[in-house]
Amino acid sequence: MVPIRILSDNDVKNILDIKNTVACVEKAYALKANNQVRLFPMVSEVIFEGRAEMDIKSGMLNEEDVFGLKLVSWFGDNKNQGLPAITGLTMLFDLKNGFPKAMINASYLTGMRTGAAGSIGVKHLSKQDSKTLMIVGTGVQAIFQIAATLSQVQTINKVYIYDPVKYENASKFQYSIKTELDKIINDINDTYNKSWKQRIESVQFVAVETPVKALEETDAVITITPSRKPLIFKEWIKPGIHFSCVGADMTGKQEIDEKIFEVASVYVDDITQASTVGETQSAIRAGILGKNNLTEIGQFILGNAKGRTSDEEITIFDSTGIALQDLAVSKYIVSKAEEMNVGTIVQI
Amino acid sequence: MVPIRILSDNDVKNILDIKNTVACVEKAYALKANNQVRLFPMVSEVIFEGRAEMDIKSGMLNEEDVFGLKLVSWFGDNKNQGLPAITGLTMLFDLKNGFPKAMINASYLTGMRTGAAGSIGVKHLSKQDSKTLMIVGTGVQAIFQIAATLSQVQTINKVYIYDPVKYENASKFQYSIKTELDKIINDINDTYNKSWKQRIESVQFVAVETPVKALEETDAVITITPSRKPLIFKEWIKPGIHFSCVGADMTGKQEIDEKIFEVASVYVDDITQASTVGETQSAIRAGILGKNNLTEIGQFILGNAKGRTSDEEITIFDSTGIALQDLAVSKYIVSKAEEMNVGTIVQI
Repeated sequence: MVPIRILSDNDVKNILDIKNTVACVEKAYALKANNQVRLFPMVSEVIFEGRAEMDIKSGMLNEEDVFGLKLVSWFGDNKNQGLPAITGLTMLFDLKNGFPKAMINASYLTGMRTGAAGSIGVKHLSKQDSKTLMIVGTGVQAIFQIAATLSQVQTINKVYIYDPVKYENASKFQYSIKTELDKIINDINDTYNKSWKQRIESVQFVAVETPVKALEETDAVITITPSRKPLIFKEWIKPGIHFSCVGADMTGKQEIDEKIFEVASVYVDDITQASTVGETQSAIRAGILGKNNLTEIGQFILGNAKGRTSDEEITIFDSTGIALQDLAVSKYIVSKAEEMNVGTIVQI
Repeated sequence: MVPIRILSDNDVKNILDIKNTVACVEKAYALKANNQVRLFPMVSEVIFEGRAEMDIKSGMLNEEDVFGLKLVSWFGDNKNQGLPAITGLTMLFDLKNGFPKAMINASYLTGMRTGAAGSIGVKHLSKQDSKTLMIVGTGVQAIFQIAATLSQVQTINKVYIYDPVKYENASKFQYSIKTELDKIINDINDTYNKSWKQRIESVQFVAVETPVKALEETDAVITITPSRKPLIFKEWIKPGIHFSCVGADMTGKQEIDEKIFEVASVYVDDITQASTVGETQSAIRAGILGKNNLTEIGQFILGNAKGRTSDEEITIFDSTGIALQDLAVSKYIVSKAEEMNVGTIVQI
């Protein structure tokens, strides 16, 4: 019998802030580039065609002395019963003896680490004075992308919201956005989150029916949809734009025109995953680029890759979501939970 | 927040008996042969070369309305600190909505379902009047193989114990065997387990230094070691013998001479796993047989395969261990736990 710490979604919400999540995800990318981590093969399965999917991402973080996995599922029909479509669990094990350490509800955790990923692309690869962000998609993950990007990129003062399914989703989302952003803690040390409230108030949020006109003044786009066809076309974009493509995580998914890859510098979280299940897969399949045209973002964070070199360069960050993000954030959550005495300890 | 039932190893010990475990495993094999289940790709990783391994097995059982996974690790150095080398967890999720249902300590569960698998091979494929069993290997899993086989094959009255590393392991094991068998519940309905005690007393246990002479009167062999080279050679065996090969579950593992496959009928739990990570891999690699020479044991259970046809036939059952065994047994454990009000419910 060993003790295992169980952390609910509420526990995670009480522990996790944007700044620490971003720090963990950047660290995971850097450790990966330094080969101090291992990513195990992903299990990605359709459970019921068009209605339910599941994936298991696993790996190990040597420096943090943990290995583990995250199982996340999507059950589309849940919405009809008012239940969340996406649920999941993270399991953390001790790299010294294999014993289980913690089980963590992965819902909020996934939103936060995915938001961190999208924002890291914008922070490191968009133009230095980027002012306008466009978010494509208004599902549960969208708010985390906006929150993390506003936290990390202080120059942004306008956010266009585009929903490819219907405009009403975008306009509805627009009116709830400040309240929702306020629920996500930016910085755990900013006790009353005062500067975060000011930051939110400093931004204009604008729902748009079509992206074409808004793209003329957009500096960075984050795509976060389950799309299987391009939503943004090469003819619509101007030089200097950045894309963080976050939605594609399975074979057949695609959010932007593969022709944009012809004129872009491409960064990814993991070359294998990006070229097989990420946004990059469609450009690879079309023969527009090969794996050797891809740079892992961890190489940039470590200073081994140069990143953007001019205000005209078009950049893409393809974030497929890797287990190391989950493990690094989970390890942080567990350390804080021990410190704060949060969660339920069960002997197993 | 959803409720999840946490079941410790002690909880599992209080719930699980041999007869129900065997029934669950046979049902899992049959459902697999009937395509009412899905096995997802296995993740099998060496963590530290020669010192630690980990695997994640996952799948879904449509009829039981569950999907899930088992993560099991082996950390060899744990023994030096008096800790168990093998630990693991099973996670069960609801196939209706993806919500987590239960987390179960997988130690005892794994022993029981692995013992059930080995015994199912002996029960269905050894000669009808099999009297003598040989167990090769005296690690933690050995007792479960013996227990399940004595439960399922009533004609066996002698068990040879052979340890390929050193004889002392076998002779030590021999003296603890009746006490250890007594700790494993055979039939939950046999309240005081009276007939089980009688059954154990009816058997002779004999440690042997080498297997050669004992094999002359052995009807069925179960191999349960981490070996990477053959331990039983073709020259040593007689017609009519059965092998349940249970130890091999990774690339490079092997317990019996691949030449035995030249003269044997071969049954497996899963053709893909058996031919890549099971005992069968070495015979496949040597060109002795192909995948089309393999029959899944579920086909026999369903009555679609004929099984043994004479007392001279040599049979092999290659059990690599599939997620469906774990899921079927886990589902049974959870149903019993609900009925008996066992375990800890945590809101996650």
